[in-house]
Amino acid sequence: MVFVGAYSSKVFDFWKGVKENLQKPLFFRSFNFFGSSEALIMLSVGLPKLIRGLHLTGNTSNNVGYAVTPVTVAELPGLNTFGISMARIDFAPMGINPPHTHPRATETPTVIEGTILVGFVTSNPENRLITKVLVKGDVFVFPEGLSHFQKNLGNGYALALGALSSQNPGVITIANDVFGSNPDIAADILAKAFQTDINVVYQIQSKF
Amino acid sequence: MVFVGAYSSKVFDFWKGVKENLQKPLFFRSFNFFGSSEALIMLSVGLPKLIRGLHLTGNTSNNVGYAVTPVTVAELPGLNTFGISMARIDFAPMGINPPHTHPRATETPTVIEGTILVGFVTSNPENRLITKVLVKGDVFVFPEGLSHFQKNLGNGYALALGALSSQNPGVITIANDVFGSNPDIAADILAKAFQTDINVVYQIQSKF
Amino acid sequence: MVFVGAYSSKVFDFWKGVKENLQKPLFFRSFNFFGSSEALIMLSVGLPKLIRGLHLTGNTSNNVGYAVTPVTVAELPGLNTFGISMARIDFAPMGINPPHTHPRATETPTVIEGTILVGFVTSNPENRLITKVLVKGDVFVFPEGLSHFQKNLGNGYALALGALSSQNPGVITIANDVFGSNPDIAADILAKAFQTDINVVYQIQSKF
Amino acid sequence: MVFVGAYSSKVFDFWKGVKENLQKPLFFRSFNFFGSSEALIMLSVGLPKLIRGLHLTGNTSNNVGYAVTPVTVAELPGLNTFGISMARIDFAPMGINPPHTHPRATETPTVIEGTILVGFVTSNPENRLITKVLVKGDVFVFPEGLSHFQKNLGNGYALALGALSSQNPGVITIANDVFGSNPDIAADILAKAFQTDINVVYQIQSKF
Amino acid sequence: MVFVGAYSSKVFDFWKGVKENLQKPLFFRSFNFFGSSEALIMLSVGLPKLIRGLHLTGNTSNNVGYAVTPVTVAELPGLNTFGISMARIDFAPMGINPPHTHPRATETPTVIEGTILVGFVTSNPENRLITKVLVKGDVFVFPEGLSHFQKNLGNGYALALGALSSQNPGVITIANDVFGSNPDIAADILAKAFQTDINVVYQIQSKF
Amino acid sequence: MVFVGAYSSKVFDFWKGVKENLQKPLFFRSFNFFGSSEALIMLSVGLPKLIRGLHLTGNTSNNVGYAVTPVTVAELPGLNTFGISMARIDFAPMGINPPHTHPRATETPTVIEGTILVGFVTSNPENRLITKVLVKGDVFVFPEGLSHFQKNLGNGYALALGALSSQNPGVITIANDVFGSNPDIAADILAKAFQTDINVVYQIQSKF
Repeated sequence: MVFVGAYSSKVFDFWKGVKENLQKPLFFRSFNFFGSSEALIMLSVGLPKLIRGLHLTGNTSNNVGYAVTPVTVAELPGLNTFGISMARIDFAPMGINPPHTHPRATETPTVIEGTILVGFVTSNPENRLITKVLVKGDVFVFPEGLSHFQKNLGNGYALALGALSSQNPGVITIANDVFGSNPDIAADILAKAFQTDINVVYQIQSKF
Repeated sequence: MVFVGAYSSKVFDFWKGVKENLQKPLFFRSFNFFGSSEALIMLSVGLPKLIRGLHLTGNTSNNVGYAVTPVTVAELPGLNTFGISMARIDFAPMGINPPHTHPRATETPTVIEGTILVGFVTSNPENRLITKVLVKGDVFVFPEGLSHFQKNLGNGYALALGALSSQNPGVITIANDVFGSNPDIAADILAKAFQTDINVVYQIQSKF
Repeated sequence: MVFVGAYSSKVFDFWKGVKENLQKPLFFRSFNFFGSSEALIMLSVGLPKLIRGLHLTGNTSNNVGYAVTPVTVAELPGLNTFGISMARIDFAPMGINPPHTHPRATETPTVIEGTILVGFVTSNPENRLITKVLVKGDVFVFPEGLSHFQKNLGNGYALALGALSSQNPGVITIANDVFGSNPDIAADILAKAFQTDINVVYQIQSKF
Repeated sequence: MVFVGAYSSKVFDFWKGVKENLQKPLFFRSFNFFGSSEALIMLSVGLPKLIRGLHLTGNTSNNVGYAVTPVTVAELPGLNTFGISMARIDFAPMGINPPHTHPRATETPTVIEGTILVGFVTSNPENRLITKVLVKGDVFVFPEGLSHFQKNLGNGYALALGALSSQNPGVITIANDVFGSNPDIAADILAKAFQTDINVVYQIQSKF
Repeated sequence: MVFVGAYSSKVFDFWKGVKENLQKPLFFRSFNFFGSSEALIMLSVGLPKLIRGLHLTGNTSNNVGYAVTPVTVAELPGLNTFGISMARIDFAPMGINPPHTHPRATETPTVIEGTILVGFVTSNPENRLITKVLVKGDVFVFPEGLSHFQKNLGNGYALALGALSSQNPGVITIANDVFGSNPDIAADILAKAFQTDINVVYQIQSKF
Repeated sequence: MVFVGAYSSKVFDFWKGVKENLQKPLFFRSFNFFGSSEALIMLSVGLPKLIRGLHLTGNTSNNVGYAVTPVTVAELPGLNTFGISMARIDFAPMGINPPHTHPRATETPTVIEGTILVGFVTSNPENRLITKVLVKGDVFVFPEGLSHFQKNLGNGYALALGALSSQNPGVITIANDVFGSNPDIAADILAKAFQTDINVVYQIQSKF
């Protein structure tokens, strides 16, 4: 999605139109239909309620050895207004799901197969790390907005199903967000933030 | 704050601390605890975040042939304030999960094993029945508050994991609610509601 | 409302359209303004705020002897975003308002005329029935999502005004929902759910 | 506040169970109670759900000729967590309900008897006054937080029932709030605000 | 559903597009994207996030000696869905911000320069006035929906920055709302409400 | 109700009363107090509403050259239930506020003095960096949950006031969270996540 470019002339054209509409005395009237999440519940009954394929193993042939198959409102429109989504998380042997946050959701992972180390870190100033080793049938909770990670401790593949308390939870993979943004964050800022040499920053940035 | 170690004697230590705080004149502290769901998010970090056993098959030796193993805030305190819960749903061959509602949640069932007929009915006046046959890997949506049911279409056991958009979704099994309440709803009311003979009502009530 | 048909080829046409819209630089942008219930509060000031006729007795000449005249956002657009609605409930002598739920609202009925038995049932596993006899001037509460019913105990007409905590509360009349859906729920499922003979199910279904 | 009065021994049975739960050391249980509005829904089922007397005419022998009989969570504890309340509004002939706001609720008044002028004023900068003459059976909407008033246009008593979208809507009667606070707002501030002579302010303050 | 009553042909121009969409069998489907405040968070990333000029002193050459420069979603579209806004408040020497409410927000004013008397009044029946003299660096809280005012106690200009808990908080300046609405509220109603002579009402109304 | 006078001995009397209520079996009484955010609004009127000292420059003599002075519900109890907080942010010359998230709030920074580079990064998969150079009087928006940073571009001190859409927004400083947690996250996980040598991880961890 490319929702940027807000500062171009097209935007001003657009906003000009919006302002005119705002000055029209009554145009908003029919927003009735769309404005209220309550009303949307009825509408949402008509949206597709089914998605297939969550039994398929994701492709974990990558640097970190995991794959996520999301089922959010983007994939399953029938989730609209319902504040919930799912994700399948596959792990190669020793694969990790690197530290990340969901800016708008709590996650409850359920282990389907394997042995998985899970951890999350509380916010400032404690930054307390809380970890647990999960086996098949265990359910854990990653509190909303907190950073968390997972690691497959076993020699085989591991699998978890995550439920998330938002239809659009979002994912911020910290390494990608900080060292792999487009464009890059200025290296001097990251060097100071991570209290390391600027060349270390350049090196990490080059990997993303 | 020391929210660790939920299943050990440390818990009592922790709660001892909480109680002491409650007795301190720093009155706002207790407000933090109870008043604001935002504040509770921090507090909730200290609640046990793990529950085991969701891989265990429920006992489906009953009249309808299914079993639910819930993971709500009652079973997993760490879900507190986070608006999400889980449930394991086992089906004997041809078993059904009879029509029911969750008064406070949408449910997204994911089929882990088997072939399951799912259906829900929209509200008045349409009462439209929407059904789908789900196989392994399918995810469906039961909109908040609507009545829904499931039936194992296969010859073997079937298994689904449900995610629910409330930490305390509640379950109203319609037959039990209407014909099995304590005490019974007066039979003449049910006879009129279901447009049937009062003896039919008595007969159904006797089963619950 | 005809929001069904989600699975036809039209859906694909539709999504094609959505994607095109997303690529148009400005279409979605204006929705921003109206998407927020906060913004809608001001807008909603322009919606019609008046509806007439709630003093008119509803037609209770039906099988159960009651009639509901709703005042939701569908009838009174000015309720949009405000999370409240009303309903007039008329009862013929001995008439009942059969067991039903409001999937998105608590209801507070106020008795204007007559003597009315009210009851609601708590959720699983207690299924506790709580009843009360209300007379003129009594106010009761049916908690959100729980099934409830009313019965006119008097020889004359009775009247209640219900207030509901949603602009679109929805009504699920349990008998209609379970035995009168379109199409019918398979009778074997209902026979098992209600633990009764399949012919009893057919008989009840034939009435709806 | 007097939240006493379970109305029958059955209620005590029910509460007996609840109290026992409260005394169990299963700490998360108490979190359930206090932390989550979702959990409170179940708990609230046990609160008294009935209040009597809304058929009684309020005493309108006062300066403005109206009386309000509120049914909020303060009077009816069973409304707790449900976001709704009621009010009976009586008008003497030509009586007024002076300009006021509900800081936390929209109100939908329904006219039961009489002819009532209603009005509300939109916020800055328009300050548009919207009025309507309501007769028996009319339902109107006062949007959340906006100032509004009512006047009985008839020679007899008039009666309206208001439903409000909060269990604790609050009332700010503007004249009392501005000219009758305890202690008084400094008169020079009000003189400037109302652009009038300070003696006019003193005179109005002396009436409240 | 028939949400008619557009009041001018301009509306039809605008709504022509919308109506066509409404007649497309699946148009509501796209609301998916826009209906949910969660989804809007992503969209909102594309909105302009910057507004300039809050360092510029407002023009306080008016009857009350203050000026407000708002930064709400109307001025800064990027605030959409985020539930927060700002305001700069300038005071001439002895200038006042007259009693007003924000129908949808709590405000936290921070004093940047000068000495400012602040006050708010609790709701009925106490109408308790709570005041405080703030100096540079003080932060205060005006609770949501309650009326409040400010007065510059110093000989020089004073400046506060207010943060508000809504992107569209609204402002109801009480004097303008009650005595300066368009059209006027009938003077007999205000005379009774403020318990004063009708000529006093006319006089105050003439100033707004 | 007498919830005022927060700074006097009456407060203790008051809280004594609350504690007694908590110990009384009329447990629903306390529910009114703590259960409902609506009820809390009235109660919160009695909490201290003032905090002093936001004009004082924070100590920026640290590795990154900035300091935050928060005004959340922990510092200012009167913010309870109101969903808003403030923060003063000081910058030494070239000082940075390193990448961080607020897990529960949007932030709107207003520049009071200086020239500040601000930036935030959108979530996966774009990770788009959006930056802007702000000068005195500029207001910007950091969307809820997204990572963001600031850098003083000038030779002198810089100052911003942030408003946040939660009374308890939380802060997760990414470097501290990932490399400075207690205890440390296992270095092999971070090496894989940041695609760097494990010795680089050890080196960075040693700084936190």
